[in-house]
Amino acid sequence: MRPLGIGLIGTGYMGKCHALAWNAVKTVFGDVERPRLVHLAEANAGLAEARAGEFGFEKATADWRALIADPDVDVVSVTTPNQFHAEMAIAALEAGKHVWCEKPMAPAYADAERMLETARMSGKVAALGYNYIQNPVMRHIKTLVGEGTIGAVNHIRVEMDEDFMADPDAFFYWKSELSAGYGALDDFAVHPLSLLWYLFGHVEAVITDMAKPYPDRPLSEGGRRAVENHDAANVLMRLGGGISAVLMANRAAWGRKGRIVLQIFGSKGSIVYDQERMNEFELYQADGRGSEQGFRKILAAPAHRPYDRFIPAPGHGLGFNDLKIIECRELIRAISGEPSSIVTFEDGLRIEKSVHAMAQSFHERRWIEIG
Amino acid sequence: MRPLGIGLIGTGYMGKCHALAWNAVKTVFGDVERPRLVHLAEANAGLAEARAGEFGFEKATADWRALIADPDVDVVSVTTPNQFHAEMAIAALEAGKHVWCEKPMAPAYADAERMLETARMSGKVAALGYNYIQNPVMRHIKTLVGEGTIGAVNHIRVEMDEDFMADPDAFFYWKSELSAGYGALDDFAVHPLSLLWYLFGHVEAVITDMAKPYPDRPLSEGGRRAVENHDAANVLMRLGGGISAVLMANRAAWGRKGRIVLQIFGSKGSIVYDQERMNEFELYQADGRGSEQGFRKILAAPAHRPYDRFIPAPGHGLGFNDLKIIECRELIRAISGEPSSIVTFEDGLRIEKSVHAMAQSFHERRWIEIG
Amino acid sequence: MRPLGIGLIGTGYMGKCHALAWNAVKTVFGDVERPRLVHLAEANAGLAEARAGEFGFEKATADWRALIADPDVDVVSVTTPNQFHAEMAIAALEAGKHVWCEKPMAPAYADAERMLETARMSGKVAALGYNYIQNPVMRHIKTLVGEGTIGAVNHIRVEMDEDFMADPDAFFYWKSELSAGYGALDDFAVHPLSLLWYLFGHVEAVITDMAKPYPDRPLSEGGRRAVENHDAANVLMRLGGGISAVLMANRAAWGRKGRIVLQIFGSKGSIVYDQERMNEFELYQADGRGSEQGFRKILAAPAHRPYDRFIPAPGHGLGFNDLKIIECRELIRAISGEPSSIVTFEDGLRIEKSVHAMAQSFHERRWIEIG
Amino acid sequence: MRPLGIGLIGTGYMGKCHALAWNAVKTVFGDVERPRLVHLAEANAGLAEARAGEFGFEKATADWRALIADPDVDVVSVTTPNQFHAEMAIAALEAGKHVWCEKPMAPAYADAERMLETARMSGKVAALGYNYIQNPVMRHIKTLVGEGTIGAVNHIRVEMDEDFMADPDAFFYWKSELSAGYGALDDFAVHPLSLLWYLFGHVEAVITDMAKPYPDRPLSEGGRRAVENHDAANVLMRLGGGISAVLMANRAAWGRKGRIVLQIFGSKGSIVYDQERMNEFELYQADGRGSEQGFRKILAAPAHRPYDRFIPAPGHGLGFNDLKIIECRELIRAISGEPSSIVTFEDGLRIEKSVHAMAQSFHERRWIEIG
Ligand SMILES: NC(=O)C1=CN([C@@H]2O[C@H](COP(=O)(O)OP(=O)(O)OC[C@H]3O[C@@H](n4cnc5c(N)ncnc54)[C@H](O)[C@@H]3O)[C@@H](O)[C@H]2O)C=CC1
Ligand SMILES: NC(=O)C1=CN([C@@H]2O[C@H](COP(=O)(O)OP(=O)(O)OC[C@H]3O[C@@H](n4cnc5c(N)ncnc54)[C@H](O)[C@@H]3O)[C@@H](O)[C@H]2O)C=CC1
Ligand SMILES: NC(=O)C1=CN([C@@H]2O[C@H](COP(=O)(O)OP(=O)(O)OC[C@H]3O[C@@H](n4cnc5c(N)ncnc54)[C@H](O)[C@@H]3O)[C@@H](O)[C@H]2O)C=CC1
Ligand SMILES: NC(=O)C1=CN([C@@H]2O[C@H](COP(=O)(O)OP(=O)(O)OC[C@H]3O[C@@H](n4cnc5c(N)ncnc54)[C@H](O)[C@@H]3O)[C@@H](O)[C@H]2O)C=CC1
Repeated sequence: MRPLGIGLIGTGYMGKCHALAWNAVKTVFGDVERPRLVHLAEANAGLAEARAGEFGFEKATADWRALIADPDVDVVSVTTPNQFHAEMAIAALEAGKHVWCEKPMAPAYADAERMLETARMSGKVAALGYNYIQNPVMRHIKTLVGEGTIGAVNHIRVEMDEDFMADPDAFFYWKSELSAGYGALDDFAVHPLSLLWYLFGHVEAVITDMAKPYPDRPLSEGGRRAVENHDAANVLMRLGGGISAVLMANRAAWGRKGRIVLQIFGSKGSIVYDQERMNEFELYQADGRGSEQGFRKILAAPAHRPYDRFIPAPGHGLGFNDLKIIECRELIRAISGEPSSIVTFEDGLRIEKSVHAMAQSFHERRWIEIG
Repeated sequence: MRPLGIGLIGTGYMGKCHALAWNAVKTVFGDVERPRLVHLAEANAGLAEARAGEFGFEKATADWRALIADPDVDVVSVTTPNQFHAEMAIAALEAGKHVWCEKPMAPAYADAERMLETARMSGKVAALGYNYIQNPVMRHIKTLVGEGTIGAVNHIRVEMDEDFMADPDAFFYWKSELSAGYGALDDFAVHPLSLLWYLFGHVEAVITDMAKPYPDRPLSEGGRRAVENHDAANVLMRLGGGISAVLMANRAAWGRKGRIVLQIFGSKGSIVYDQERMNEFELYQADGRGSEQGFRKILAAPAHRPYDRFIPAPGHGLGFNDLKIIECRELIRAISGEPSSIVTFEDGLRIEKSVHAMAQSFHERRWIEIG
Repeated sequence: MRPLGIGLIGTGYMGKCHALAWNAVKTVFGDVERPRLVHLAEANAGLAEARAGEFGFEKATADWRALIADPDVDVVSVTTPNQFHAEMAIAALEAGKHVWCEKPMAPAYADAERMLETARMSGKVAALGYNYIQNPVMRHIKTLVGEGTIGAVNHIRVEMDEDFMADPDAFFYWKSELSAGYGALDDFAVHPLSLLWYLFGHVEAVITDMAKPYPDRPLSEGGRRAVENHDAANVLMRLGGGISAVLMANRAAWGRKGRIVLQIFGSKGSIVYDQERMNEFELYQADGRGSEQGFRKILAAPAHRPYDRFIPAPGHGLGFNDLKIIECRELIRAISGEPSSIVTFEDGLRIEKSVHAMAQSFHERRWIEIG
Repeated sequence: MRPLGIGLIGTGYMGKCHALAWNAVKTVFGDVERPRLVHLAEANAGLAEARAGEFGFEKATADWRALIADPDVDVVSVTTPNQFHAEMAIAALEAGKHVWCEKPMAPAYADAERMLETARMSGKVAALGYNYIQNPVMRHIKTLVGEGTIGAVNHIRVEMDEDFMADPDAFFYWKSELSAGYGALDDFAVHPLSLLWYLFGHVEAVITDMAKPYPDRPLSEGGRRAVENHDAANVLMRLGGGISAVLMANRAAWGRKGRIVLQIFGSKGSIVYDQERMNEFELYQADGRGSEQGFRKILAAPAHRPYDRFIPAPGHGLGFNDLKIIECRELIRAISGEPSSIVTFEDGLRIEKSVHAMAQSFHERRWIEIG
C-alpha cells in the first residue's frame, strides 16, 4: 500500500503541532507506515513555501483548494482559525480525503451539523483535535474508572483556566467580539467537555452563568470598546447515571496558564488531575487501614500506554506536543479501520450541542435539557 | 472589674474547643482579663461533673437552665447540636448573658430570626462560631484584597469537602434525615459562606443543584432507608460588584478531610487558600517580568496578626483549635466595646438566608435573588 | 495526691509555649491532674509580675533560685537561653524537683554531662524540650517503621533550614559569636537529630563540612566584624544497622521558615515528612499494581494518637504549640512512673555527643566514630 | 551546502531519543538544514533493518564500522552502552565525523582521556548527551543566577533518585557488577554533576560515602550473589567561590522515578527545581514586604527560550524527549561554528574526573582535592 499522503492547512500553533506529529508518528510507534508529507497551505505563498521547507512538505500553496484537489493527499489537517473549519473540512471530505480538524468544529451549530453530515456521506474518517484525551495518564484514569477502582462515580468538577485575557489594560481584539463566539465557553471549555465525554459520555442538562470581568477594553487607536462576549463561564451539569458535575472556565484567571483540573468522586475513591502537571495524577482509594489512606501522586510511566512508546523509564515526562503524536497514531488507526480512540465529528457535534445549550441556558436563565 | 464568668453548654467536639479557648485566651493574648470558668452543662450529671473537672469549671449541671440562671455567668458558650441553639441562645440573652453560639444559628429560619431579634433587644453580644475567618492567613488575605493587591476581584470559587458521608455502606443515621437540614448546604457550606461574607459581603443571587450520591443506606437493624437530604450541593452565585462565584460543598468526597479551597481572581492577580494547609496561602501578582511570575506560597508568619501572639517564628504553624482562641479574643473585644471581628447574629442570619435561598432555588429550579 | 506544682523560668518564645502547655494539658487529656501554676521567674521583677498574671501563675520572682527553693514547686520548666540550662537544671534537680529543660542541654559538653549526672543521682525526671518527636504524625511514622511497612530502612536524609541568618546585611549579633556555639549544628541541627534518635537510635560515625555563607557582617555601630561560627553544616552519617544518612542544616537558607524534611528509604517503601506541613506525611509502598504506585499524602487524623485528644475530625490540623502540650502530657506520664515518650537527659547527652563529634570531624577533616 | 548526514549507532532508549531529535529538529527550529538520516547500526542485521525503517534512516548495518566508513555520514550518534563509547567515538572522530555520544564518556578514566585527545586532534565537534541542561527552565535558572537575582550563591544541594534497584528481591544483573562501574555515582550522578557544571563550574573538593542497601541479591539460576558496587552515594563538596554543596544519588530509592532536585541558596534568594516536574521551578526573592514573601512556582513559558519554538502558550509543558531536540539544535550550532551550549568531551572529562575522585575519597575515607 502506498503511504498516507498528508496535506496541512495552516501552520500556526496547531499547524506546527500537527507537522511535528506527522514527522514523528512513525519513529515513535514503529507499527505504522511513515506518512508522506505532500502538500502544505498557508495564507500567502511566501509563508507557505518557507513552512513547507521547515516542516518537510513537498509542495506549498497559498490556495488551500489546490491542496485539497491534490490526488497525492489522503488526509487533510485543518489547523486554521475556527471560522474556516467548516468550509475546509467539508471540501476535503467531499474530495474524498480523511480530515483531522482542530477543535471546535465551527462557531455556528448549523455549520457543525453540515460538517457531520458530509463526513457521514463521505465514509471517510473525520476526527477532531481534542488532544487532552490522548494523555496516557488520562487513558489510565479511564481504565481505572472503568475497572471500578473508585466505585460508582457520582460527582465531577472540572476547571479550565488560563490568563491570556486577564489583563484589563490589554487592547480589545477579535477574541472579544461576538462573532468569535461566546467567549470562554466555546473558546476552550470544549476541552474539558471532551474529557467528560471521553470518561463519562455526554451532558444531559445544564444551567449556566457567564461573566465579563472587564465590560470594556481600550482600543489601540484610542477610546474604549465594549466587550461582547464572556471570559468566564460556570455551569452546573447533570451527566448520565445521575452524576452531578460543575464546569468552570475562565480565560481571565491570573496565574493559570494551562490549568485543566478534573476532580472525580466515586463511591470507593477519588481521582484528581491537573493538566499543568500532565505527567501525574492523584488517586484516593478508601481501602486498607484508615490511618494510611491518602491521595497518591502517581507519575506517568510505561505502564500507562502508550507512554512506553516514547520513554521506557517512568517519571521522565511527556510534553504537550506528544499528545498530538498519540492523536495522530489514533487517527491512522481509524483510517486503517482498527479500533481507535478519537473524537469523531459525531462526538464533536454533541460536545458543541452542549456548548450551545449552555449559552442558551445563560441567556434564558434556566436549566436546559440536552436532547 | 470582675473577670468574665463563663458558662459552657455542651462538651463534645466544639465544647472542648471552646473550653480550650477559654483556658488559653489570657495566656496567649495577655491583654485581657483571665476569664473565670464558672459553670458547665452537659446532658447528664455524671458527664457534666467529669467534664467540669477536666475543663476547669467550678460548677457542673445537667440542667442548662440552671447555668443560664447563674448570676456568676456573664457569657454562655452554646456548643450543643443545632436544634438546641435557638432555645439556649434566646434563654441566655433574655437572662442578660452574652452568647457565643456555634454555627449555624438554627435549622429553621424563623428560629434564627427570633435569635437575632432577642439579641437586638438584649443589647448583649451575640456571636457565632465561624472560626475559619479568624485564621491569621485569612485576615491577611482580607488585608491584601482590601489594599488592592490583586486589583478588583471579579471571580471566586470556593469548595468545601469532607468524606464523613462518603461510604455508601455506612449505616443510615440522623444526618441523612430531613429534620437535620438540607445536607451539605447547611451542615457545612455555611463555613465557606462565612468566608465569602468576611471577604466580600453578602450573596445577591443564586442557582443551586443538589445531589444524593447514595439514594438509600443500610439500616443497622437490617433493611435500607431512603436518604432524605443531599450530601452534595453546587451553587452559582452573584456577589456584590458583579463578582461571579461558584460554591461547591460535598460531604461524600472521598479523601477530603477538611478541605475548604478558596480561589479569588482579580484584575491584577489571584489568591488561593486551602484549609487543609491552613498555614499557607498562594498569591499571584501580575507585575514584574513575565518570566518570573508565578503563584507564591506564603507561610503563616508573625507579620500575619495575631500569629505573633502564638509563635514568634514564621512557618511553625497554628492549629485548628488556635482559631477558636482568636475567636474568643475577638468576642471579649466585642464585649468590651472594642472594634472586633466576629460573625454577629445579624451577619449569621444573612448567611442563613442565603442558604435557604439556595435550597429554594434547587427545589424551584431557578435563580433566586436574595433581598 | 496534691496536684503537680509548676515553676517556670523564662517567659520568652519557649516560656510562653510551656505556659500554654501547663494551662491546657488537663483540658486536652482529661486523664491527668490539673497542674497548679505556682511560681514564675523572669529576669526582672516587673516582667515576672506581668507574665505571672498573663500565664496564670500564683507567684512571681526575679530570682530563679527562690522559685527552686519554693516547696510548692514540683516541676521546673527551664526555658532560658542555653548558657543558663546547666546551672538552673542542676539546682532544680538538687532541690528535688523534676526538670523540663529546653533543648539543647548546654553549650559545653562537660556541663551537659554534669546535668545528666545530677539527674541520675536525684532520681527525678529530667526531660528535654524536643517537641518535634511528639507530633502525632511523627509517632505514626515511628509505628509504621516499627511495623515494617517500608521494610528494612537503609537510607535517610534530613534537612533543617530556616532563614533568620540569611540576610547578609543584618547586623552582627551574639548568634555569630563562637561563645554561642558552632552555629547551625548546635543551634538547631539537634532537632533533626532528636528525630533520628527517636526513630532509629543513635549516630555511629560522622564526617562534617561547615560553611560561612557570609564571612563577616556589619556592626550596628559601624564597621564590620568577622563571623565566628557556621550558619551551614552538612554531615554524612552512619547509623546502626548500616543505615547511611545525610544531615543538612542551614540557618541562612532564604525562604525556609521551619523546614525539617525527613526522607526515609526502606526495602519496601519510603516515607517523607516536612515540618512546614506538620499535619501530613507521604508514604510510598511498593506493593499492588505498579501502575498505581505513588507517594500517598496522608493527613493527620484521630487515628494518629493523640491527635484525637485535640480534634475528633481528620485533616483539621494541630499547631506547633500543641506539640508542647503532648510533650507536657508525656512528662507527667514519666513523673507518674508510666511508660512515656520523652527525651531524657541520657538521650540528650548522646545527641550532644554526636554534635560535638560532628564539629570535631569538621575541624580535623576526617570521619569520627562515636563511641 | 549539503545537509548534515546522520549516522546512529544503537536504537534502545537513547537511540530512539536521538532518532526522534534528528527527525524533529528542523520542524521545531526552522532555522537549520533538515538533516539527512543516512545510516543506522544495530547489534544484528534484522533489528538494524527494522529500526532503520521505523526511524527513517536510508541504510542499515550490523557493523557499526561500516557506518563510520560511510562518506555520507557527517555526524555519529553513539547511543550504545557505556563500554562501547570510547571505541566508537574514537573511530568516528578519526574518520573525520562529528560525534554526539551519550553520557558518560567511558567506565575507565584513561579511555575518557583518549576520547578527549582524539576529539582535540580531529578538530571535530564532540558532544555528550547531558540533556538536562537543555531544559528551558534550567537555562532560565542559569540566566537568573547570572543576573544575580538570588545574589551570590553560597550553598547547593542536589539529589538524584530513582528506584530501579530498590527491590531487594530482584535478580542480580550486570548493573551490580564492579565492571559496570561504581554504581549510583557513575550510573547517574553524572547528570546532576552536569547541572552543577552548567550552572557553577567544576567541583574542587569532595568527601564521599557510598552504601549498599542490599549486600547480595538472588540469582535467577538459584543461590545469591554479592553486590559489587553501591546503589547509594552521598558527597560533601566544595565548588569554586567557596560554595558548599551536597550531592545525594540513590538508585534504590522507592518511589522516586526521575527525581533530580536542585536547591540553590544565595544571598538574596533561593531557587528549587525538580526534574520530576520539569516544567516548573520555584524562586524565592527576599525583597518587598516580608508578609508576602514566599516560593513562587513558575511554569515553563515561551519567555524561557527555546520553549517558544515548541509551543507558543505558557504552562503547556515540554517532555523529556524535547530536551534531546534542543540538544540536537545546539550540536548543529556547534558544528556550524556558532556559540552553543553543549557538554564537550572537555567538560565531560572534568565531570568524570570528579566522579573518580569521589570514588577514591570513599575508598580512602578522606577529602580529595580535584586538581
Ligand atoms: N488542540 C488544542 O489544544 C488547540 C487547538 N487550537 C485550535 O487550532 C486552530 C488554530 O488555532 P491556532 O493554531 O492557535 O491559530 P494560529 O493563528 O496560530 O494559526 C492559524 C494559521 O492558519 C493560517 N490560515 C488562516 N487562514 C488561512 C487560509 N485561508 N489558508 C491557509 N492558512 C490559513 C494562518 O496564517 C495561521 O498560520 C483553532 O481552531 C483553535 O481552536 C488552538 C490551540 C490549541
Ligand atoms: N465551628 C466549627 O468549625 C464547628 C462547629 N460545629 C457546631 O458545633 C455544634 C456542636 O457540634 P459538635 O460539637 O460536633 O457535637 P457533639 O455531638 O460533639 O457535641 C454536642 C454536645 O452537646 C451535648 N448536649 C446535647 N444536648 C444537651 C443539652 N440539652 N444540655 C447540655 N448538653 C447537651 C452533648 O451531650 C454533646 O456533648 C453544632 O452546632 C455544630 O454545627 C461542629 C464542628 C465544627
Ligand atoms: N523546642 C523548641 O522548638 C525551641 C526551643 N528553644 C530553646 O528554648 C530556650 C529559650 O529560647 P527562647 O525562648 O527562644 O528565648 P527567648 O529569648 O525568647 O526567652 C528567654 C527568656 O529567658 C529569660 N531569662 C534570661 N535569663 C534569665 C534569668 N536569669 N532568670 C529568669 N529568666 C531569664 C529572658 O528574659 C527571656 O524571657 C533555648 O534554650 C532555645 O534553644 C527555642 C525555640 C524553639
Ligand atoms: N541522556 C540520558 O538521559 C540517558 C542516557 N543514557 C545513556 O545512553 C547509553 C545507552 O543506554 P540505553 O539507551 O539506556 O541502552 P539500551 O540498552 O536501551 O540501548 C543500547 C542499544 O545499543 C545497541 N548496541 C549494543 N552494542 C552495539 C553494537 N556493537 N553495535 C550497534 N548497536 C549496539 C543495543 O542493541 C541497544 O539497542 C548509555 O551510555 C547510557 O548511559 C541512557 C538513558 C538516559
